[in-house]
Amino acid sequence: MCQLFALNSNAPTEVTFAFTGFSARGGATGEHADGFGLAFHDGAACRHFVDDGRASDAALACFLRQHAIRARTVLAHIRKATQGSVQLSNCHPFVREWQGRHWSFCHNGDLKDFHPRMNGSHLPVGDTDSERAFCFMLQELRRRFRRRVAPGWQVLAPVVAELAADISRHGVFNFVLSDGQAMYAHGATRLHAVQRKHPFATAHLVDRDLALDLGAANGPHDRMVLVATEPLTRNEPWAPFAEGELRVFVDGEQVWQAAPKRLPVRVESARGAPAIASVLAA
Amino acid sequence: MCQLFALNSNAPTEVTFAFTGFSARGGATGEHADGFGLAFHDGAACRHFVDDGRASDAALACFLRQHAIRARTVLAHIRKATQGSVQLSNCHPFVREWQGRHWSFCHNGDLKDFHPRMNGSHLPVGDTDSERAFCFMLQELRRRFRRRVAPGWQVLAPVVAELAADISRHGVFNFVLSDGQAMYAHGATRLHAVQRKHPFATAHLVDRDLALDLGAANGPHDRMVLVATEPLTRNEPWAPFAEGELRVFVDGEQVWQAAPKRLPVRVESARGAPAIASVLAA
Repeated sequence: MCQLFALNSNAPTEVTFAFTGFSARGGATGEHADGFGLAFHDGAACRHFVDDGRASDAALACFLRQHAIRARTVLAHIRKATQGSVQLSNCHPFVREWQGRHWSFCHNGDLKDFHPRMNGSHLPVGDTDSERAFCFMLQELRRRFRRRVAPGWQVLAPVVAELAADISRHGVFNFVLSDGQAMYAHGATRLHAVQRKHPFATAHLVDRDLALDLGAANGPHDRMVLVATEPLTRNEPWAPFAEGELRVFVDGEQVWQAAPKRLPVRVESARGAPAIASVLAA
Repeated sequence: MCQLFALNSNAPTEVTFAFTGFSARGGATGEHADGFGLAFHDGAACRHFVDDGRASDAALACFLRQHAIRARTVLAHIRKATQGSVQLSNCHPFVREWQGRHWSFCHNGDLKDFHPRMNGSHLPVGDTDSERAFCFMLQELRRRFRRRVAPGWQVLAPVVAELAADISRHGVFNFVLSDGQAMYAHGATRLHAVQRKHPFATAHLVDRDLALDLGAANGPHDRMVLVATEPLTRNEPWAPFAEGELRVFVDGEQVWQAAPKRLPVRVESARGAPAIASVLAA
């Protein structure tokens, strides 16, 4: 199965250190060698790199380890194909525009018999369950929020939680989603998070014999959250998500959280109104 | 004003030689230093690189000159900002998904007072006239072809020609557009094309003291069309587009062409039916 990594920060931050450890799993310390990708959100726009090679040694991955691109939100993914062949169109992150912002999405997991009705507003380019789930979520958000002005994460978060719970009925659905304003992370089976802020420690990678003095790399007011399938460093307090938990991060802080107390019950919502909040513990 | 370059070929082709000459105009031999980008179409998907630096010396541009990415259709752009500030979201090519394919678009020109009614299906992320025109064209294509199965270029070409003529009323509208199946090129003031096929010559760049033996770089059955604002090589028969001419290229051959004999008259079309063919010379 794939692995994902994401960062959300209150200041433009580089991820070359974390990506050095993460990308080793794409063919060196891990078997996720069927493609990789990164999305760097810079305001409403996103800079997007995908490749169907091995993240551990592909030329593009080497370039991205050596040339820092600073961004407030970064999503990264290394792929081990479960559904869909090894090809560019199946590499995460997937990117789409909705309401004048780029949205990006990475998935770890496997959805069975997931063939929702698609109205054509966002359609998959490749043939993975992951891209289908992303397009379906954007389609449903678009359907519920037809107004031109984009709703904020406060309005979107309960709907994303509802959609995540719905789609999770089809299998394992760990994902990270962002529009550059907020980062939504959903844990199903394997997802971990850690926050870094002053005073910063020295971080040691799990996958490489490499350490970084975070105090030298960051200022006293910098603050960031890292999310990953498995912890990337071995001396930081990574904590797992609960099953079915959705967390929202803005400016390097968790601002919203919901985990189902019991299996969510699908309620048809009025347009724009989150329907499942009553069965979620916010 | 910006410059654009595009290639359409019958086999995956690298553009490192052409991009070496073209990117020199992004800060070295030309003043187009406000960002650059490339889109490499590989089937339905597109690999997309944009940067707000100078194409002549930005690290990403160096990487793309040194590492060949082979594709059947490639769009490239170097920007000199006329509308919209120097930022990532204003760099061409712009990319959107429609009907399960990535579409990319580059513009050279300047549109005045172009504020069409946008229904939200495709919205600009940045603030250029170019991205607005691209989103408007996709919106209109989506509106006219609501069926799920994508129409081919034979059906789309007259509608693209009609939209191009409509938008051209607002100013200079040289552009290249592709979904990886066909490449649409519209000339307004400055656009040139050349076809390369067996027997191949040796090409000499205009902007660098560099030559390439195209016979050694290509097989006897390879065939390609290059389109550029200004010719990239000085010993090939680049020919200008007529004003208002739209050409469509598939597999390195021109397959469709239309140039207005007179100013196009806007006719409201029935859904899916090209309306302006009567005033175009196909």
